[in-house]
This record gives sequence, C-alpha cells and structure tokens, in this order.
Amino acid sequence: MSTKQGLDPNQGGDATKKTYNKQATGVAWETVQSHSAEHDLKLYGSCFCPFVHRVWISLEHKKLPYQYVEVDVYRKPKLLLDINPRGLVPALRHGDWGSYESTVLMEYLEDLNEGEPLLPKDPKLRANSRLWADHINRHIIPVFYRYLQAQEAQKQVEFAGELKEQIGKLVDAADAEGPFFFGKDMTFVDVQIAPWIVRLQKVLKPYRAWPDPEPGSRWEKWVRAVEENEAVKKTTSDDQLYLDSYERYAENRPNTSRVAEAVNSGKGLP
Amino acid sequence: MSTKQGLDPNQGGDATKKTYNKQATGVAWETVQSHSAEHDLKLYGSCFCPFVHRVWISLEHKKLPYQYVEVDVYRKPKLLLDINPRGLVPALRHGDWGSYESTVLMEYLEDLNEGEPLLPKDPKLRANSRLWADHINRHIIPVFYRYLQAQEAQKQVEFAGELKEQIGKLVDAADAEGPFFFGKDMTFVDVQIAPWIVRLQKVLKPYRAWPDPEPGSRWEKWVRAVEENEAVKKTTSDDQLYLDSYERYAENRPNTSRVAEAVNSGKGLP
Repeated sequence: MSTKQGLDPNQGGDATKKTYNKQATGVAWETVQSHSAEHDLKLYGSCFCPFVHRVWISLEHKKLPYQYVEVDVYRKPKLLLDINPRGLVPALRHGDWGSYESTVLMEYLEDLNEGEPLLPKDPKLRANSRLWADHINRHIIPVFYRYLQAQEAQKQVEFAGELKEQIGKLVDAADAEGPFFFGKDMTFVDVQIAPWIVRLQKVLKPYRAWPDPEPGSRWEKWVRAVEENEAVKKTTSDDQLYLDSYERYAENRPNTSRVAEAVNSGKGLP
Repeated sequence: MSTKQGLDPNQGGDATKKTYNKQATGVAWETVQSHSAEHDLKLYGSCFCPFVHRVWISLEHKKLPYQYVEVDVYRKPKLLLDINPRGLVPALRHGDWGSYESTVLMEYLEDLNEGEPLLPKDPKLRANSRLWADHINRHIIPVFYRYLQAQEAQKQVEFAGELKEQIGKLVDAADAEGPFFFGKDMTFVDVQIAPWIVRLQKVLKPYRAWPDPEPGSRWEKWVRAVEENEAVKKTTSDDQLYLDSYERYAENRPNTSRVAEAVNSGKGLP
C-alpha cells in the first residue's frame, strides 16, 4: 500500500477508515527498533497479535538476541512462507530451520536452554504448567473471542459469565500468594495468558464493558503483576493500537451494568 | 452394575443391548492382568478410549512399571476424582500427585527420563514433533469424529475427503522412507496418531467404509508399521471391542463407493 501525503503510515487503508496497525507503537516500537538488526533467530510477528505477543514476551524474558520482523499480511516474506505456506504468525526462523504455533515456539525456546527458563525443572510442575496452559488455550481464549465477537446483548452477557468462570478455575489452581501462577516469578502459564490479560483491559473493557478486577483479590494481584512485568511492558504498544486493531468489534457495545452483573454475580473473580 | 446369570460381564447393560465395554480383551487384557499389582504409577483408563491408548502405548514402549486401573464411568475411584473432579481419563497418578490430558501425560513420561525416549534430543526435531502432534489434535482427530458421527450421506462423503486431506499433510511432512514419522523408530508423533490409525481400520472401515491404504503407498507403510508395533499390539483389544464401543454410530452406514470415491479422488493417500 502506498503512503499518501497526510496519511498516517501506521494505518492500513486510508485515514478515514482504520483497519489494522502495521507497526508497533510506544515502548513496543522501541523494542522493535532495538531488534531490527539481522540475526539468525527471527521472530515473524504482527504488532497486535496476542499469540505473537506470547513468544515476544518469552524472548524478552530470556534476554535472547533476536530480530523482530513485522509481517505485512499483503506482502508476506518468502523466508516466512518457507516456514508455513499460509505465512501464519508467530513464526520463528533459526538459521535454515523454522517453525510456528505459539506454544510449540515457547517450548522450543525452553529447549534451547539459554537465558531464564519459563518451565520449572521438576516433571510434576512441568506437567502442571502444561495442563493449565492447555486450559487457557481451550477454555479461556475461545471464550474471550466469542465474547468480543458477540453482537447480541444476551450472548455478550452469557459469554462474559463463562469467561469469568474459566478464569476463576485458573485462579483457583494458582499459588495462593502469587502474584504469578507458581508464586513470585513469572513462568510459562503466566506468559501463556499475559497477552489476553493485557487485552482484557485494553480491548474487552472499552468494547465489551469487562469490569476491572475486584480490589484486593488474587486476580487483581495477578493482573497487576503481569501488567508491570518488564518483558510484558517492552512488548506492549500504546492503548490506541489495541483499540484500532479490534475496532471492527466496536458495534453493539453492551449494556455495561448487565455485563458487570453477569461477571460479578455472586462474587467477583477470586 | 450387578452381574446377572447368563449375561456377559464385559457388556455394560443387559445382553440384548450392547453399550460399552467394561474391560479390555485379547492381548490388551493380558497386559491389564500383568499390570494389576499395586504400583506408585497408575494409569486410569477406559479400554476403548483412544486418548488412554496413547498414554498406554507410551508406558509399554518405555517398558515402565505401572498399574493399569480400568475406570467404571458410574463408579469413578476417589483417587481419580482427586486428580480431576470429572474423573476424565486418561489420568496418571504418581504417588500423591496426579494429572490428566493425554499430551500433558506423554510429555510427563518424557520428562521422567526413564526408558526409551519418544521425543528426540534436538530442540528443532522436538519442535517438529510438537507441531505435527498439534496438527493431529486440531485437524485430524476432530474430523475423524465428525465423519464417524455424520448421519447424512453427503456430510459423510465431505468429511471423508477432509480426513484424507489432513492425513495427507501429515504424510507429506513425514520422513520419505519411514516407516514412522521420523524414520525407522516409533516416536512421539506416531504414538499421538496410533490409536486413530487402529480405529480407522477397526471402526471407520466397518461403520463408514473408510478404504484400506493404497498398496505400496507411504501411508500404507506407516499404517502397517504402527499395527505391527509391539507396544501398540499389547494395548489393543480384539476387534469386537471396538465394534461394540462405537456401535451407536452404526446407523446410516454410507454408500461405500461414494466414500471410496471421495477419499480416493485424484490419487490415494500418499
């Protein structure tokens, strides 16, 4: 797409119709710039994609050197298409080899055994990590999207309640003290859910009236710890990018009090 | 359920109406019997469940000592419910700890680092294994069930074609020589798909006219190698158990030639 005079180059499409962002902003943009040099280990990503965000957080957490490559959906680089013909992101290239699927890539980075590990050493704790990562992938994330995409008020309220319930199970399984899943350090399960914690606040709240965490709750403690984590901050763009990227869901915003009621019925998230 | 005179104890329900099998038969029954002694490592399973079958094959392949515990869906043992409240199988108990989800359990057995490994040492090959295990779980297995459960002829033909296509992608990714995914030895990806290879033959063929592999093809080589593998044979019951367990799908068997055509259109599985 050509850049016309007066148009914001960060907008896909003309300035009167925002579609999707073409590059990161804020602190994430600084991180992109400091990882733009050619490197053997390349992360192919989209600045707004939560699955990319997971792998990006992992790389930053481990302080691994890498090159960040922003993928233009209309001009996917051959080096990416060689990894998977649909050019899906996130993808990693490491020398001549490449792979994709965010959880596969996170496990790969663990297996490299460089930098800070995200999986514990103990096989039982590793299994616990994978079990709750699976819960996030199969029971939390799909409901997040159903809620976001629901156009009808009744459905929005229903999915809000289900999202609260599924998050509640995760919180119940977490270390009682926290703030992270296993305790004081961020590990695999936290990174698996972190991009959606960010988007609960920056997307679900403005567009679907998702309520703030209940003050003093275990969930609030977890959300704050994720938001304040260095690797998360370094890979998160300014709020506007997330608003723009999910704007197409902005129609049919729900009745705020009904959603709050569904989420907070009984008690708030633990 | 009480055992009445004249009824086959292996049938759930009365003899005129077969529902599900309550214990393994054939070679699998011998394996159950030789793993009935109390042991710290327990596999909770159902004799017909393919997800259990994966973990069972892994235990046999690694020649790990374990206790097999057949789960009666109406009388789930407390030791299982303590692992997960719905008593889902497969589940593993190892001392005081337990977990579930077949892929999580397979990774746990790898992490124990005892017996024959199913995952390679190299991080890139491990990632390849996980990527194709993910393909099996998200793109092959759901279509297997859609095909099996489809009552309408047109749908059956459609799903048969899709199943062939998804299996084809896996075969294209496999080592050209084989017979297994990475070559001459059975590894993680093979064990992930093995229970469904067994059920293509013992369930999809009788009930949905799934055609035999094309003679001389790479797929046929793989199927035969899986069927002849010792750990697979030791955990597979006689054919009748699979016919009985899936009998409720027996209604509306498809027009054989239409299915064969859908699966074999163009060329057969590579």
